[in-house]
Amino acid sequence: MTRGIAILGSTGSIGTSALDVVDRLGERFRVTALAAGSNMPLLAAQVEKYRPALVSVSDKRNAEEIRGLSRRRTKVVHGPEGALAVARAEGADIVVSAITGIDGFGPTLEAVRAGRRVALANKESMVVGGAFLRKEAARSGARIIPVDSEHSGVFQCLSKERKKHVRKVILTASGGPFFRTPLKDIGKKTLEEALRHPRWVMGKKVTVDSATLMNKGLELIEARWLFDLDPAKLDVLIHPQSAVHSLVELEDGSVLAQLSATDMRIPIQYALTWPERVDSALPGLDLGKLRRLEFYAVDVRRYPLFALAWQALREGGSSPVALNAANEAAVGAFLERKILFPDIPAVVGKVMEAHRRRSVDSIEAVYDIDREARREARRFLPQR
Amino acid sequence: MTRGIAILGSTGSIGTSALDVVDRLGERFRVTALAAGSNMPLLAAQVEKYRPALVSVSDKRNAEEIRGLSRRRTKVVHGPEGALAVARAEGADIVVSAITGIDGFGPTLEAVRAGRRVALANKESMVVGGAFLRKEAARSGARIIPVDSEHSGVFQCLSKERKKHVRKVILTASGGPFFRTPLKDIGKKTLEEALRHPRWVMGKKVTVDSATLMNKGLELIEARWLFDLDPAKLDVLIHPQSAVHSLVELEDGSVLAQLSATDMRIPIQYALTWPERVDSALPGLDLGKLRRLEFYAVDVRRYPLFALAWQALREGGSSPVALNAANEAAVGAFLERKILFPDIPAVVGKVMEAHRRRSVDSIEAVYDIDREARREARRFLPQR
Repeated sequence: MTRGIAILGSTGSIGTSALDVVDRLGERFRVTALAAGSNMPLLAAQVEKYRPALVSVSDKRNAEEIRGLSRRRTKVVHGPEGALAVARAEGADIVVSAITGIDGFGPTLEAVRAGRRVALANKESMVVGGAFLRKEAARSGARIIPVDSEHSGVFQCLSKERKKHVRKVILTASGGPFFRTPLKDIGKKTLEEALRHPRWVMGKKVTVDSATLMNKGLELIEARWLFDLDPAKLDVLIHPQSAVHSLVELEDGSVLAQLSATDMRIPIQYALTWPERVDSALPGLDLGKLRRLEFYAVDVRRYPLFALAWQALREGGSSPVALNAANEAAVGAFLERKILFPDIPAVVGKVMEAHRRRSVDSIEAVYDIDREARREARRFLPQR
Repeated sequence: MTRGIAILGSTGSIGTSALDVVDRLGERFRVTALAAGSNMPLLAAQVEKYRPALVSVSDKRNAEEIRGLSRRRTKVVHGPEGALAVARAEGADIVVSAITGIDGFGPTLEAVRAGRRVALANKESMVVGGAFLRKEAARSGARIIPVDSEHSGVFQCLSKERKKHVRKVILTASGGPFFRTPLKDIGKKTLEEALRHPRWVMGKKVTVDSATLMNKGLELIEARWLFDLDPAKLDVLIHPQSAVHSLVELEDGSVLAQLSATDMRIPIQYALTWPERVDSALPGLDLGKLRRLEFYAVDVRRYPLFALAWQALREGGSSPVALNAANEAAVGAFLERKILFPDIPAVVGKVMEAHRRRSVDSIEAVYDIDREARREARRFLPQR
């Protein structure tokens, strides 16, 4: 049986990997809808190749460009409303949620409400609205399958039966490009150096988040909601080889772990084919060749943002929303070369200090807190 | 509900660890029968403490000694027939099979025929009679749960659903005390040095088998039958830290692994409490403290017995029976200081070369081949 797939963020790193996986799986899947931002040459090629029934782009002008190419086989929509239309598109059994940042929350929520299987790469959805997503999934029957390699690993190790007996769930972090940099030199690191990730090829925002370990902080909060786990049971280990993605320690001292080559297509494919496994000639893991796996506790002096993420995880309520917004704003400014690398934790720290923690009662409240924290972050940006 | 436990080999390393686990689990288990060899002081203490209904010892004299102590609460039997009586004892829901060597095969088969849950530590049972044990278990409804840490790991990673999609099952080996010894110096190693295992505290026979890697060869053959796997799907990696016990590689490139502290009580407890997990304060694994896990392919120049075991695994039929018998005879002679360390693979090699491979149609045939190979081994023992 061929299943329909909609991809939110089809021209990004996860989106293109997902399409590669779809290609490898032959007749199993058919691409029915795509949502992209503004990489029109790539999107045009995707539309030409997959001929989806529906495509969404960032704005009206881009929509017209794609419309001109698609010769009426494809309906073209645009803007945030367009992405929502793709998220609930008819004929899509699976929605790959891979728009970066809080912009992915709305479409993810829409796909969950539509009862789809959601292959979730947008961790911010769970960070800012985990409780809402859980509730809506329970109502609609949607199934959320993680795409992040760490969460995919936990998902594979943590059966329902085992969840009762979990002592600890440990996510690994590569430590990013500055793991072995002397502490005093981290302040001098440039944008180019921050974007040189040692293991994974990813989008720019998440690569910077790997250098600060904020990515792992967000993943902890994601894991808390994805698996409904007490924050006290979550932990992180630095593991520079990124072969072990996560570990589940059970009450009897036994630890189950998931490993693979560092290739995002592996967890993406599993999210699509679950509960089946398919041999699509993705790279295997040769431990005899890799030889050495290392594990280290996290040094928060090296990763001050990670400590802030832990705090937000424990506090709950509006704190994770503010944390994520402040970080998105600060990393955005860093990517535009407006601030320096050490300014990122400084700005986020100031936003979190000024933030008045409150409960989040509605989706609208999520966006209000997000806007407020971004405003605050802009206020704290140093003038460089 | 309190469940009855019988322990075959109660005074050995696995037997005493199993009793420690029973102590930790409180009211869950009650020891109903014990079989031991000739360590009478320890067995006497066990009888005093657990007051089992049935006890078996090696011979008549030992039987009388225990009978004198037990004040008629305990029925005392002896010899191979005695061990069989313990294996099928009334009131034992679980039988821990932990007699070393081929002597464990008969009692294991008896427990399987009686439909018990068998916590299997005696790997030789599966090596010499895996096909028979599988058939008898299917008939009686017995469930065989592995106790070897490597097989327990596979058992925990390999669900029925996953078995269809297995690409490879990898057992790890510590490499034993001579893993880093220059090849030319291995010939000079003494009995004391061979018995100094870097990670595990075990009986003498299995410790020598770890130094030659024959232990891992036997475990491969055990895994072949325990999990009904094509020998081509089995593999071994040297992993000196013994934290990862085994890995299951699936068709989609994902690898699941099981880890724990090097403490046999962990897999023993799981075999007893399965499918439950119980927190009995067994040691956890601190990867941040262990820091480094290493993996190496096996160098057969260092471990010639391992190559012989692979060959026996591939050949099947009588080969694994002859392999095990020759090795038991050679290691026995080494433990009695009659031969040197490098004589072990030499003797086993000669027996295997002279062995005429045939199919094994009956339990009796197993014992015939076993006796024949031991006779051959004695013939090939060098006069030192």
